[in-house]
Amino acid sequence: MSTPFDSSGRVDPKAIASNTSRWIARGVRGVVALGSNGEAPLLDETESDAVVAAARDAVPRDRVLLAGTGRESTPMTIAASKRAAALGADALLVRTPSYFKPRMTPDAFVAHYSAVADAVRVPILLYNYPAVTGLTLTPDTVRRLAQHPNIIGIKETSVDAAQIASYVDATQDQDFAVLAGSAPSFFTALGLGAKGAILAAACIVPAACVALFDAFTRGDLITARDLQRRILPIANAVTSGYGVPGLKAALDLTGYVGGAPRMPLLPAAPDAAAAIRNALTPVGEYL
Amino acid sequence: MSTPFDSSGRVDPKAIASNTSRWIARGVRGVVALGSNGEAPLLDETESDAVVAAARDAVPRDRVLLAGTGRESTPMTIAASKRAAALGADALLVRTPSYFKPRMTPDAFVAHYSAVADAVRVPILLYNYPAVTGLTLTPDTVRRLAQHPNIIGIKETSVDAAQIASYVDATQDQDFAVLAGSAPSFFTALGLGAKGAILAAACIVPAACVALFDAFTRGDLITARDLQRRILPIANAVTSGYGVPGLKAALDLTGYVGGAPRMPLLPAAPDAAAAIRNALTPVGEYL
Amino acid sequence: MSTPFDSSGRVDPKAIASNTSRWIARGVRGVVALGSNGEAPLLDETESDAVVAAARDAVPRDRVLLAGTGRESTPMTIAASKRAAALGADALLVRTPSYFKPRMTPDAFVAHYSAVADAVRVPILLYNYPAVTGLTLTPDTVRRLAQHPNIIGIKETSVDAAQIASYVDATQDQDFAVLAGSAPSFFTALGLGAKGAILAAACIVPAACVALFDAFTRGDLITARDLQRRILPIANAVTSGYGVPGLKAALDLTGYVGGAPRMPLLPAAPDAAAAIRNALTPVGEYL
Amino acid sequence: MSTPFDSSGRVDPKAIASNTSRWIARGVRGVVALGSNGEAPLLDETESDAVVAAARDAVPRDRVLLAGTGRESTPMTIAASKRAAALGADALLVRTPSYFKPRMTPDAFVAHYSAVADAVRVPILLYNYPAVTGLTLTPDTVRRLAQHPNIIGIKETSVDAAQIASYVDATQDQDFAVLAGSAPSFFTALGLGAKGAILAAACIVPAACVALFDAFTRGDLITARDLQRRILPIANAVTSGYGVPGLKAALDLTGYVGGAPRMPLLPAAPDAAAAIRNALTPVGEYL
Repeated sequence: MSTPFDSSGRVDPKAIASNTSRWIARGVRGVVALGSNGEAPLLDETESDAVVAAARDAVPRDRVLLAGTGRESTPMTIAASKRAAALGADALLVRTPSYFKPRMTPDAFVAHYSAVADAVRVPILLYNYPAVTGLTLTPDTVRRLAQHPNIIGIKETSVDAAQIASYVDATQDQDFAVLAGSAPSFFTALGLGAKGAILAAACIVPAACVALFDAFTRGDLITARDLQRRILPIANAVTSGYGVPGLKAALDLTGYVGGAPRMPLLPAAPDAAAAIRNALTPVGEYL
Repeated sequence: MSTPFDSSGRVDPKAIASNTSRWIARGVRGVVALGSNGEAPLLDETESDAVVAAARDAVPRDRVLLAGTGRESTPMTIAASKRAAALGADALLVRTPSYFKPRMTPDAFVAHYSAVADAVRVPILLYNYPAVTGLTLTPDTVRRLAQHPNIIGIKETSVDAAQIASYVDATQDQDFAVLAGSAPSFFTALGLGAKGAILAAACIVPAACVALFDAFTRGDLITARDLQRRILPIANAVTSGYGVPGLKAALDLTGYVGGAPRMPLLPAAPDAAAAIRNALTPVGEYL
Repeated sequence: MSTPFDSSGRVDPKAIASNTSRWIARGVRGVVALGSNGEAPLLDETESDAVVAAARDAVPRDRVLLAGTGRESTPMTIAASKRAAALGADALLVRTPSYFKPRMTPDAFVAHYSAVADAVRVPILLYNYPAVTGLTLTPDTVRRLAQHPNIIGIKETSVDAAQIASYVDATQDQDFAVLAGSAPSFFTALGLGAKGAILAAACIVPAACVALFDAFTRGDLITARDLQRRILPIANAVTSGYGVPGLKAALDLTGYVGGAPRMPLLPAAPDAAAAIRNALTPVGEYL
Repeated sequence: MSTPFDSSGRVDPKAIASNTSRWIARGVRGVVALGSNGEAPLLDETESDAVVAAARDAVPRDRVLLAGTGRESTPMTIAASKRAAALGADALLVRTPSYFKPRMTPDAFVAHYSAVADAVRVPILLYNYPAVTGLTLTPDTVRRLAQHPNIIGIKETSVDAAQIASYVDATQDQDFAVLAGSAPSFFTALGLGAKGAILAAACIVPAACVALFDAFTRGDLITARDLQRRILPIANAVTSGYGVPGLKAALDLTGYVGGAPRMPLLPAAPDAAAAIRNALTPVGEYL
């Protein structure tokens, strides 16, 4: 989920509630608060807690609330994870620390994630996002971490089919979910053994994403592939093309509360709205 | 196909014949002479012609012989393409020139490929291999080139599911084949609309690659996915792990003629043979 | 400066005082608190303030105290900058935000830095560190920002001689200091017009760094070049080779307080100490 | 040197003669035939020989003629090197092979260059050009190769000051010349111990490059640094900005024979001429 701000730039819990209830009504299985597209790195700790609290109020107990709690340091990640768990998050999405890139060896990642998973009771999902972090978890690192009873899955935000396949293969004897984190590889990932997806595009066309997943699950690959084709332009316009400002502009265009991003993000340029509107036309039924 | 050399380092047409007849017997639909794994960049023009001639002798007329004819300059590419066509190649695989990277704009690629496709009568396949060239053809460039009546497809050698999907979508109103060029994305690519694959792994486990394709085509995705998993370790060991020297070592281990690579390639280290042998065990029935 | 932690992992103000007084005695012109090698991204806001306060106590008024205050969001950067200024920092070193890479356009950087420079009274230095952020400030962006009366310089942490020359040239009609941020380019940068340097190596061999600068300034290039050669192995061992953990191990080896890094950083491997000791031998007189 | 083609696209020996005699008159110490900016990768073997022969006719015996003879395979590199030596080249510039990147280990480079240096009597210079090849020679590889009596130097085409310093340091006990290969790092490289430079910019402003070198050599760093600043816009416009087509346009603008590049290179866009003309204005006296 996107994080809406009010006109003073403060987190807006009412908008979180209204957006979330519409996503839930469209059939999404759960919601991620404080992901990258939720501008998590731009919020302070107090604001982060407010977002989780508001999301928890809005997500019914039969759906899943994930909270992003990755920080650069292990102690700060643990602290954020404990607070999110206390606020009712069902599971935590923990992005790889990445500032000190050459030091982020497999052993460092195993030590970091094990310390976090040991410290909280709610389950942990790894979050691998190479385009942002400049790092990637190796399949062997994921295999090692999947053996921790409190680490239950990974969000892989890339379009690398080999990586997704490798994660699935490396964890196939564990109860471990590989989730697609990037709309262009949603169908592909399911074909390779992923169990679901966490997608910014689902903020805009939640019903299309749900329909793709359901079609794939019942073996209707032609429908799934067709939906994949239709989602792709949305993903390209919003995520690759215009990023968080584009996502918020798209939300505004589709009746959700989008609003302005926080600086240093600048609002989407005026031409973005036209491009996004074009991309929305063929998926109008899924908004 | 790999290019075998005799003990003096000369192209060995007899070994080409024996290897090729076994691949054909395993059911492959065609053979590529002078691809990357055929050490094409290490052969001079006379040797290149000898490889195409030997391959043409060995590939029956009901299978396809592709010849790699990409060179850095357009005139040299045209010259190589005419010679390969005269020697009987059914189609030509033309790698993107890449030395002058910043100059290789979409317009430069369109001009280059159009000039080649105008100059020969046999059809052309584009060949995109970002890991080697540091460049990638944009979907729009492929769309433009797909309109040329003599450009019939593309080999995409990457694991980028989004790229494969984009090529399929950009050319869906043309008679144009997107082919997977990388074993880890074979199953994925078929799911996204690719019409086949050109794979170094097929030199080692041709029957597995053919079986995967056939299973996918008849809708048996479970078998196809299972074969994908079994092919992956071969691809990892041979292509990613040890490259051309590993491929040649694997050929030697499986009863084909592999032999030494040409310098500056060094023979695979002794430990490669053990690693490759391990990777071969679970696919023994498909050699 | 490195940030020392006590045995419970808490910021250790006494160790900050003892380290700093020795650096000052060696002749350094100033100290940076909360740089990358100070593990700034691993500290929470309260700890960050404690480091600045301790450094201010230790740095005499006739030397310069810089404080790193870059955060991912503009409001958090402003808040941290105001606090550091209130604690007595003479100038602020503000790293480029980088999480949302494709959105970090020149206009976004200009808006971000202008907002920060407008909000505080102490002067601002830009901080460009492409290896960590995956982004780089263009010379034209630096030229635009150099026109702000409260932006007085840039720390360029790379070995790109062309970039340093371009920054110098882009700002030559302003009162603006380009500072080398990477020991291997210290001598080079001075030759291209840089006015100084901020170097992790100066934690270990402060007297050598000061001597190099002084030799260059008085025109003794042979001595300066010789010192550059002698500093290089230290820089390679500590920064490139072992990073923050290596820096801390080197501090321990040379009589400063180094100590353990904070997780996810792991302590330097045992072999690092031997390698660092070797690199220290030829510069023993400058410790 | 650039390689001029006549109106039919054939190598033009007369234009080589006239260009070269003017460069020689401007004081350059030598000329490189068949470098990257000579479009070497676009010429066939017969054309390559014609260029070396024409250059040898034009370069007086008291200046140096270097010929580029790097090919992807070791045997082809040796063959080209022998032919260039027979045609009178004083030394050979041998670019790293790069097609099979992951196989190009230090050992493979040492074997390749040693084989070439063993096979010819004229001396060899290594040629490292990471932006084109995606590879870089490590300082230790250069140190090993510098011990070969027939390997006398390296052209380093990058702006990485640390790399240049490392090469100088790794070979300081050998009779080995590190040469700058990129105009933006010319002054820097001299300061770090380089013994000269091979620069495309010297095709346009030969007298400025010679004057910079001479000023540096006699210790007049202020003049050298000033010339560096004045050369930079030329280098940026020609090499980084417009590449080979820009270099040829600049030659046409300054009274040399430039002409059209060979496909797949396209002629410089019309706006390039204006940009290049602007860059030439402040260096008119050095053309």
